[in-house]
Amino acid sequence: MGNQTKGYHVAVVGATGAVGQKMLETLEKKNFPIEQLTLLSSSRSAGEKINFKGETFTVEEATPESFENVQIALFSAGGSVSKKFAPEAVKRGAVVIDNTSAYRMDENVPLVVPEVNEEDIKNNKGIIANPNCSTIQMVAALKPLQDAFGLSRIIVSTYQAVSGAGTAAVEELREQSQDFLNGEELTPEILPVKNETHHYPIAFNALPQIDVFQENGYTFEEMKMINETKKIMHAPELSVAATCVRLPFFTSHAESVYVEIDQENTSVADIQRALNGAAGVVLEDDPSNQVYPTPLSAVGKSDVFVGRVRKDLDTTNGFHLWIVSDNLLKGAAWNSVQIAESLVKYNLL
Amino acid sequence: MGNQTKGYHVAVVGATGAVGQKMLETLEKKNFPIEQLTLLSSSRSAGEKINFKGETFTVEEATPESFENVQIALFSAGGSVSKKFAPEAVKRGAVVIDNTSAYRMDENVPLVVPEVNEEDIKNNKGIIANPNCSTIQMVAALKPLQDAFGLSRIIVSTYQAVSGAGTAAVEELREQSQDFLNGEELTPEILPVKNETHHYPIAFNALPQIDVFQENGYTFEEMKMINETKKIMHAPELSVAATCVRLPFFTSHAESVYVEIDQENTSVADIQRALNGAAGVVLEDDPSNQVYPTPLSAVGKSDVFVGRVRKDLDTTNGFHLWIVSDNLLKGAAWNSVQIAESLVKYNLL
Repeated sequence: MGNQTKGYHVAVVGATGAVGQKMLETLEKKNFPIEQLTLLSSSRSAGEKINFKGETFTVEEATPESFENVQIALFSAGGSVSKKFAPEAVKRGAVVIDNTSAYRMDENVPLVVPEVNEEDIKNNKGIIANPNCSTIQMVAALKPLQDAFGLSRIIVSTYQAVSGAGTAAVEELREQSQDFLNGEELTPEILPVKNETHHYPIAFNALPQIDVFQENGYTFEEMKMINETKKIMHAPELSVAATCVRLPFFTSHAESVYVEIDQENTSVADIQRALNGAAGVVLEDDPSNQVYPTPLSAVGKSDVFVGRVRKDLDTTNGFHLWIVSDNLLKGAAWNSVQIAESLVKYNLL
Repeated sequence: MGNQTKGYHVAVVGATGAVGQKMLETLEKKNFPIEQLTLLSSSRSAGEKINFKGETFTVEEATPESFENVQIALFSAGGSVSKKFAPEAVKRGAVVIDNTSAYRMDENVPLVVPEVNEEDIKNNKGIIANPNCSTIQMVAALKPLQDAFGLSRIIVSTYQAVSGAGTAAVEELREQSQDFLNGEELTPEILPVKNETHHYPIAFNALPQIDVFQENGYTFEEMKMINETKKIMHAPELSVAATCVRLPFFTSHAESVYVEIDQENTSVADIQRALNGAAGVVLEDDPSNQVYPTPLSAVGKSDVFVGRVRKDLDTTNGFHLWIVSDNLLKGAAWNSVQIAESLVKYNLL
C-alpha cells in the first residue's frame, strides 16, 4: 500500500489540449496523489513546457514505451490516439481512463460517471471510458430521480459551448465575434465540424449540428447521448431522444430536459428534494428570486447545477428541468480524475 | 371599392421601435396599398423623422384623436399602450392589428397566423391580435402536420434572439460582447427582463428566462407559447410544453420541437412532403450535405424554415424538428402585414 501514500505514476496523453490542460489543473487542485507525472502528446506538440505544482515538465511524443511503469493513463488526444496507444498502456500494466469516444460503447469497457455507476470500474479490463460531456451532466442530474421515482423517458435539447469542439473552435468564436462586431465578413473554417465540407458562422448564431450525421438523421453527438445514457444508467429500456445544438459561448453546456418518471403523484417539491444534496448536484431553483443556473455561472465549478424544475401541464408524471455544468470539468477533466480517485478508493491500481 | 385600389389610411403605433421599423420596411417591401400613413409613438419619441417610400414622415404623440379616419392601426408599442389606445382606434372605425400580448387570450379577439387560421379574422370586433413571435413560427410549421396527420403533443425548447426584447437588449448584447472580448467587467442592465430585480450577462451566455415567472414556475413567454398555440390551432386538447431560453444572437428564433402525431406508420419522408411547399414554410433538410437552417441564415426572410426532421427512436408517432424564422418579420412585422392583407382580401375594411 506504499503506493497509495506516496502516490502514483500518472500519464496525461494530450496534455497540451483544452481538456488535457483542465486535467492537469484538476489533478493539482484536487491534490491527487502523484509520485511521477508523464506528459505526452503527438509529435506536433512534443517539446512544449508545462508547469505542474511549481515544477516544469516537458511534453514528450507518445510511444508505446512511454507507458512503462505508468499506473494511470488519462487519454484525451482524440479517438485514433486512444485506439493506437491505450492497448499499449494496458499491456504495460496501466489503467487507462479514456476521454474519447473510442471505447465507450465497447461491452468490455465500463463507461463511468462516479455518482451514477462507480462500481462498474470493478469490471474494468484495463480501460475505463469517460462519457461524452453532454451525457455526463445529464445522467448525474437524473440519477437521483431514477433512484427515487424510476425513470422511463428523457427528451433533451442541448445548448453546448464551443470549447467542446477544442481550442481551435474557441479561438474561432473569439475572432469571429470580433469580426462580426467590426462589421467584417465572416470566414468560418472550424465549426460545426472541422473535417466536414461546410463550415458555418458560430458568432451570434446557433448550429444544429455537433459531430457528423448518422444514417438515421441524428448526429453522432445525439446518438452518443442516447446510447451512453442507457449504458451508464443500466437502463436499456429507457427512452432517450436528443437534439444537440452548438452555441456562441465558450464554456459550460446547458440542457433543457423533459423526463417522465414511473411514480405518479410526484410534486415539484419531491423532485427538488431528491436533487437537493445529491452527490455532485446543486439545486439552483428559485423562480421568485430569478435563481437558476446559466453557462457563465457554472464556469470553473465541478458540480452539476439544476434549475427551472416544473411539472408538465399535460401529463401526470412529466417534469421539465434545466441542467448546466462546466463541460471541461464535470464533462471531462473532473469526471476522469474522479474515476482515478475511485480506482484508488477501490484499491484497483 | 375605390379604397382598395387607391389604398388605405394606415397608422403605425410604436413606429420608432424595433418591430415598428420592420413593419414600415415590410409595408414598403410588400407594397401594401397605403393612401395615408400616420406614424405614432409615446411623447418620448414624438418628433422623430422616418423615411417611407422616399417621403419623410414626422412621428406624432399618440392621442385618441390620432385615429380619426384611420382604417388599419398596427400596434407595437407595449401592452399598456394597446390597452389605452386600441379601443379608441376601434371606436373611430379602425381595425387594430395588435402585436402586444394585451388582447391575445381575449375570447372576443381573433389570434391569427394567416397560414393557420386566416378565416378567424372574420370574427373580429375591431381588434385582431398578432401572436407571440416564438408561437407564430412554430404553428406555421406545424399546421401542415396537423392537417395531414393530426397533432396530439408538442414539446418545444427555444433558442431566442435578443431583438425579441427590444432595441435596448440588442444594444446591450452588442456592447457587452465587446466588453467581454476586451476582458472588461460586465454590467448587465436590461436582460433577461428590463423591469425585474436581477439582470444577468447575455454575452457568451444563455438565460433560461424570457418575461416574468408565473405562479406555476413557467415564464410568461412559456405560457404564451402554450396557450396561444392551442387557440390559434383550434386545439384545446393539444398537449403543449415549452422551455424558453434567451441566447446571444441578434435576430431569428430557433426551436427544437418534438411532436407526436395521430397517424401511425408515418415516415420522415411523409413529414418532409407535408412541409415542402406548405404556405410560408421552406424545408431546408439534407443532413448528408449539412443543410439545415440557422438563425443567421434566416435573417431578413419572411418564411419559416424547417430542418433536422427525424423520427423519434422510441415511439411510433414521434418526430423531432428544428424550426427557424426571423423573429422581427414572420414573428412580428410580416405576420401583422399579412393580417392586413387578409383584411383586404376578405373585404373587411
